[in-house]
Amino acid sequence: MPSPRPSSRLLRAFELPRSYAPRRIPRPQFQSRQFTKAVKRPLNEPGQRDPLKEWREPSKSSPWGNRIRKYVLVPFTLLLIYNILTEDVKAEGPTIAEKDALLKRESGITEQSPMRLRMEQFIKQHQKQIVAELEKVDGKKFHIDTWQRPEGGGGITCVLQDGNVFEKAGVNTSVVYGKLPRAAIQKMRVNHKALDPDVDSLEFFAAGLSMVLHPSNPMAPTVHLNYRYFETADEFGNTNAWWYGGGCDLTPSYLFDEDAIHFHSTIKSACDKHDKTYYPRFKKWCDEYFNNKHRSESRGVGGIFFDDLDESEKDQEQLFAFAQDCLSAFLPSYIPIIERRKNMPYTEAEKQWQQLRRGRYVEFNLVHDRGTAFGLNTPGSRVESILMSLPLTARWQYMHAPEKGSREERLLEVLRNPKESMPSPTSFTPDKQSLLVIDGPKKLIYKEQDTNTP
Amino acid sequence: MPSPRPSSRLLRAFELPRSYAPRRIPRPQFQSRQFTKAVKRPLNEPGQRDPLKEWREPSKSSPWGNRIRKYVLVPFTLLLIYNILTEDVKAEGPTIAEKDALLKRESGITEQSPMRLRMEQFIKQHQKQIVAELEKVDGKKFHIDTWQRPEGGGGITCVLQDGNVFEKAGVNTSVVYGKLPRAAIQKMRVNHKALDPDVDSLEFFAAGLSMVLHPSNPMAPTVHLNYRYFETADEFGNTNAWWYGGGCDLTPSYLFDEDAIHFHSTIKSACDKHDKTYYPRFKKWCDEYFNNKHRSESRGVGGIFFDDLDESEKDQEQLFAFAQDCLSAFLPSYIPIIERRKNMPYTEAEKQWQQLRRGRYVEFNLVHDRGTAFGLNTPGSRVESILMSLPLTARWQYMHAPEKGSREERLLEVLRNPKESMPSPTSFTPDKQSLLVIDGPKKLIYKEQDTNTP
Repeated sequence: MPSPRPSSRLLRAFELPRSYAPRRIPRPQFQSRQFTKAVKRPLNEPGQRDPLKEWREPSKSSPWGNRIRKYVLVPFTLLLIYNILTEDVKAEGPTIAEKDALLKRESGITEQSPMRLRMEQFIKQHQKQIVAELEKVDGKKFHIDTWQRPEGGGGITCVLQDGNVFEKAGVNTSVVYGKLPRAAIQKMRVNHKALDPDVDSLEFFAAGLSMVLHPSNPMAPTVHLNYRYFETADEFGNTNAWWYGGGCDLTPSYLFDEDAIHFHSTIKSACDKHDKTYYPRFKKWCDEYFNNKHRSESRGVGGIFFDDLDESEKDQEQLFAFAQDCLSAFLPSYIPIIERRKNMPYTEAEKQWQQLRRGRYVEFNLVHDRGTAFGLNTPGSRVESILMSLPLTARWQYMHAPEKGSREERLLEVLRNPKESMPSPTSFTPDKQSLLVIDGPKKLIYKEQDTNTP
Repeated sequence: MPSPRPSSRLLRAFELPRSYAPRRIPRPQFQSRQFTKAVKRPLNEPGQRDPLKEWREPSKSSPWGNRIRKYVLVPFTLLLIYNILTEDVKAEGPTIAEKDALLKRESGITEQSPMRLRMEQFIKQHQKQIVAELEKVDGKKFHIDTWQRPEGGGGITCVLQDGNVFEKAGVNTSVVYGKLPRAAIQKMRVNHKALDPDVDSLEFFAAGLSMVLHPSNPMAPTVHLNYRYFETADEFGNTNAWWYGGGCDLTPSYLFDEDAIHFHSTIKSACDKHDKTYYPRFKKWCDEYFNNKHRSESRGVGGIFFDDLDESEKDQEQLFAFAQDCLSAFLPSYIPIIERRKNMPYTEAEKQWQQLRRGRYVEFNLVHDRGTAFGLNTPGSRVESILMSLPLTARWQYMHAPEKGSREERLLEVLRNPKESMPSPTSFTPDKQSLLVIDGPKKLIYKEQDTNTP
């Protein structure tokens, strides 16, 4: 943002809301430090000169006082009043990007920081951890790109291509500060009534971690994960509406029941810590969302998906804790699977089937995925980071149909028949292991058994 | 459509508008042939019995006449009146699909037939011709699928996969009868004021030929073509709004200037026969349309594209002739190119570059192409025919950048810099050959020269 006029700098200082700036955080830079310090100094301490004395009782003996008043202060005050009356003050308040940059610089990130900064810190820490673990699995290093957005924010894109285990793996964090146009606000109001319907644009903030791993081995499933926090600011830069979204899902080319079971039960445990209704609700949402509607076919065997979780669901701290636990559940949900599958033998035909399934993955991401559409339509977005989710290679074969009774056909049957059976949330107890059993091609049910049972 | 009640069958016969049914076409089947013939026979010819005599002067000596009147005709007439008053006559008029089926069956397709049937016939004839020529080029045969739509219409999908020359080639005709919902009508009204804004739905007809050829050899360009006719019917089944759309464009992975020149000049000649403004207008439209906006990159080196050409442009016969000439120009525009390139030597790296360009093709078709979006969102559409446009294989590589000064880099530069220079339409003379010259990476200009010049 261009350097504002002095009057608006002053105004900004007063606009900064109390709720935003906790006491231990120093006032923003654009406020006069000199002036702030002067005010903080106790007045009339014994033996001390009142620093504002000259202002209160201007010395009649100083002709300079009068001259300053007359030739400097009066015109300045008039100019200030003129500016207050004429300039668009609202549009010139500090952006949330500017505020956050200042806060980070001056006081770091603590539990008292705005959620924007806490979420950013959390996803970046987690990105490092995931990248480190995946490098151990693959044996090759990720390529890391750090980029800035001119409008504020930026991201870190980590990609491993042609690895030993991963054909393509992308782990991306991005932090976006921008302005929502009126049309976007209207759309979002459907789910977030706190959004002001009468403004032409709103500042927004979005931070998220997104990840897609496409292993080379057709027996190893593709996995996707995305957790994000979204916030809009009102005209004074205060948090207006906010919400969490995200999820993760597994997309095998060859279905191993135990993989789906392990993946789902790990996620379920993370969800159940917060709300027993979360897993069944968000599993259903995932099945509905990750669906290639034009083919009436699920993208994979699901996971969880949620969006627009705001104060109507739970408070911000609770939802942040939930998003954190979901993200932390990723490594334990996937690492055992990739370790089991990464070195399995496979045939050329099985590799080709994987390539066809990759084609379906591309179809979903480019035709149906709202995140991809939002990214591609956001001016100045980084296309390579958005499309890193696409596989290295894909295939489309006209009218391909797998052989009757084959594993390929079984996968299609599972994907075409939604699997809705799940255990009653109340029946889940911590001492038992929840097992997802794929019982024939059309049923995906839960069985509970003692953790000791093999 | 389910078999209508007798009363509505009768009503339909009278609803059929004169303008729709030229004299030489017999009345529709659902009208009583007996009755039609009786009316057409001259009444009271010498020596002949008046066939309607019994109706005019019922014999008093026949008690059956009275009984028929009393027990059959009176109740039937009352039932008829009741039905006329109570049933939704408009909704039960014959659909245009039913009318067309009848016309085809009873009188074949002539120059007096509705445009719907003429367009359908033309694209099907042309499909055969294109398929036959491409089979000569490839040496392998197309796989042909004929399919029906339950709502009316159907199509013929011809696909050649893993051929000697073509990795994937699809030539598809489709004829669709359906209903446009209110939202779609409102959208279309922007370009077609003839559309009635006050109806909840409108019958529509769409017929088109679409084709995408992806050759195996990276030196041979992909080519796309689509010509279509669209029509809506008013509540009585009469043509309401109609328009033509279409175009063709060339997508090389390696740019050979002479290929682009030949392709463009063949299309230009076809356009110039109809209107000297067509080529420059529709070339520009093509550059704007076939653009991967999210990458600020053209899909290929262009061609022509147009849509919504209706009576505000030229009359229906003139536009049909134009669409026919465009379609007929395809084989001469492409066959010489594919013959030149199909057996050129290439390296593995060049094949990989082609695969990356295929990825861009997929991005355009799935993210931006309106035809694909319309197809995938039309209930009951045949997904395999819509997505036959996708290449057999594609590749996405994170942050791929071609070597400085390479042919790959030159292509990207051409695709990222719109080529707007073109000859003044008036300067084009039939005895000269219009040449499109790609002059350095940033200019695509026209030069005119005598056809004798090499």
